[in-house]
Amino acid sequence: MWMQQEISLKPRARGFHLITDEIERAIADLGHIKIGLLSVFIKHTSASLTINENADPTVRADFESFFSRSVPEDQPYYQHTLEGSDDLPAHLKSSILGPGVQIPITNGRLNMGTWQGVYLCEHRNHGGSRHIVITVQGE
Amino acid sequence: MWMQQEISLKPRARGFHLITDEIERAIADLGHIKIGLLSVFIKHTSASLTINENADPTVRADFESFFSRSVPEDQPYYQHTLEGSDDLPAHLKSSILGPGVQIPITNGRLNMGTWQGVYLCEHRNHGGSRHIVITVQGE
Amino acid sequence: MWMQQEISLKPRARGFHLITDEIERAIADLGHIKIGLLSVFIKHTSASLTINENADPTVRADFESFFSRSVPEDQPYYQHTLEGSDDLPAHLKSSILGPGVQIPITNGRLNMGTWQGVYLCEHRNHGGSRHIVITVQGE
Repeated sequence: MWMQQEISLKPRARGFHLITDEIERAIADLGHIKIGLLSVFIKHTSASLTINENADPTVRADFESFFSRSVPEDQPYYQHTLEGSDDLPAHLKSSILGPGVQIPITNGRLNMGTWQGVYLCEHRNHGGSRHIVITVQGE
Repeated sequence: MWMQQEISLKPRARGFHLITDEIERAIADLGHIKIGLLSVFIKHTSASLTINENADPTVRADFESFFSRSVPEDQPYYQHTLEGSDDLPAHLKSSILGPGVQIPITNGRLNMGTWQGVYLCEHRNHGGSRHIVITVQGE
Repeated sequence: MWMQQEISLKPRARGFHLITDEIERAIADLGHIKIGLLSVFIKHTSASLTINENADPTVRADFESFFSRSVPEDQPYYQHTLEGSDDLPAHLKSSILGPGVQIPITNGRLNMGTWQGVYLCEHRNHGGSRHIVITVQGE
């Protein structure tokens, strides 16, 4: 059994945002799947997806603080600078965090840990709407 | 053909640990699969999975040294500090390394390179037992 | 429907290289797949795969500059040094960027964003030919 859905996420501020609910709403009928996988892929090179703590918002704030220090803007050795100070660091962060996540499905539900959620990682100051492809397979 | 197994890994010290054998033992019968994929997912936000060198233990020791310098504890700008100095860095490392790996299956065997093994990356000082979901699909 | 192909990539210089065309050539007949996934896995621990900007070569040059600063050679605390200054950093970069990418297939085509391409990330000075396994599944 295969299902696929492409959705647009509303524009978000630069930073890390929980989107687990939006993914679950887009794929309504996991209930029929006993064993499977859900794959989410972001169609951009300056935003990314990851899985992390879904409770305390300070974790997501600290992610933005850390990654913006770890991948700094305006380094003298950067050559790709025409699209703004946030552009090349956004590409770098996207590859460090990655464009996709894969989550197991067990007995009709996403089989994540209690504290896990999916983050949209918006690395641009004004990234606009982001498009993701959700693919579900299972039996 | 789908198979899925959820297993608990015994508690490990903070650091990087080879768990390829435990994954292979959990899924006994890859032998029937000509083409497929094995997916491993960790249900935690302060431990992660990666694939790297399976021979020299100094590689795994250097991984711990590098990531603990690269993602330092006790930074003055961290806000999420209530659960200990190792907690927020553990979340960050988990997203840098990622919660899962996907490995191709070819003619009944994991089709990794000779030097590749699966690492459990334990980022907490006392992380306890960790739970992983192994999903196999193929034909 | 499953397809799998193992291919050898020609040796590349240390750095980041677009290989989307080579992947698409290896798997000729995506045209029959309405919904699916393409998975690429590299069988090495000192080279990796990622998805990023496919147009401006300065992005790829900046990736090499950034990651070689971010994961420096010859640190006094490295223990795994027998295989050369570029070896342990290559292992670290491989795990930061990851050994594989998963791309959705929609209506017979890879469903990436306009600006996305697959990078071979060559972390060794003389890495030689690299082997990747491409697995396609879908319906």
